[in-house]
Amino acid sequence: MGDLEIRAAVADDVPEIVAMLADDPLGAQRESLDDLSPYLAALERLSGDPNQHLMVAVRERRVVGTLQLTVIPGLSRKGATRSVIEGVRIHADERGSGLGTQLIEWAIGESRRQDCQLVQLTSDVTRTDAHRFYERLGFTASHVGFKLPL
Amino acid sequence: MGDLEIRAAVADDVPEIVAMLADDPLGAQRESLDDLSPYLAALERLSGDPNQHLMVAVRERRVVGTLQLTVIPGLSRKGATRSVIEGVRIHADERGSGLGTQLIEWAIGESRRQDCQLVQLTSDVTRTDAHRFYERLGFTASHVGFKLPL
Repeated sequence: MGDLEIRAAVADDVPEIVAMLADDPLGAQRESLDDLSPYLAALERLSGDPNQHLMVAVRERRVVGTLQLTVIPGLSRKGATRSVIEGVRIHADERGSGLGTQLIEWAIGESRRQDCQLVQLTSDVTRTDAHRFYERLGFTASHVGFKLPL
Repeated sequence: MGDLEIRAAVADDVPEIVAMLADDPLGAQRESLDDLSPYLAALERLSGDPNQHLMVAVRERRVVGTLQLTVIPGLSRKGATRSVIEGVRIHADERGSGLGTQLIEWAIGESRRQDCQLVQLTSDVTRTDAHRFYERLGFTASHVGFKLPL
């Protein structure tokens, strides 16, 4: 396989990002490729925020992975800054290639560069393969993740 | 009890916020009242970010509760914005008074005002009372929360 580049997402990447978000048992019910304007608006909002990093992994000019890293300062843990990983997706053609590990390792490295003391994420209880994946990378399933749709 | 005000935290609130963070089975091991400077630096960083809301609940001029609400735009779920609640603490004198409910309801209302489609939080697996509290408020324990200290 060709070289992999991990870089900030731009508007031209949005169709491929949304296709990956939708190509997923949970995402299939939640995404729509018919109208990209809400996705483009979200990208614009993210791009203006220095604490937001919407990233893509690109191989041979194709977007093959994505994740969002958010840096969150806070008072607890002696004023610790933490980072939150959301929206991790790997293109179907690349699953099992180690790309997921590379993306998460990028996020951990970037979190260290930004002096975060903690990286956190939540994963749907049904994604048991993902849970094993995060545990292999050193994460601990120490918390219960609660959600409330509005 | 006197009237309750929920407002943005300021530097003068920091000693009382840190005292609440430390007055907790988990926080006792993680916080230090000896040097407030890292907490003050974190507050300054939060205060400059329009997506961050570090709040205090004040009754009779005493800080009796705190939480941090972070607004996170994103591409997934059709460009949905979500909010994340962190660092919820209620003063020992106020536990059982309904203040926790008022603070979380404030966070839900503010999330709605900011057009968030989802409110989320994680709670340590050992905090089983907190889990019941969040479920009573309508949250679903749909996710596993992973953390990696750096």
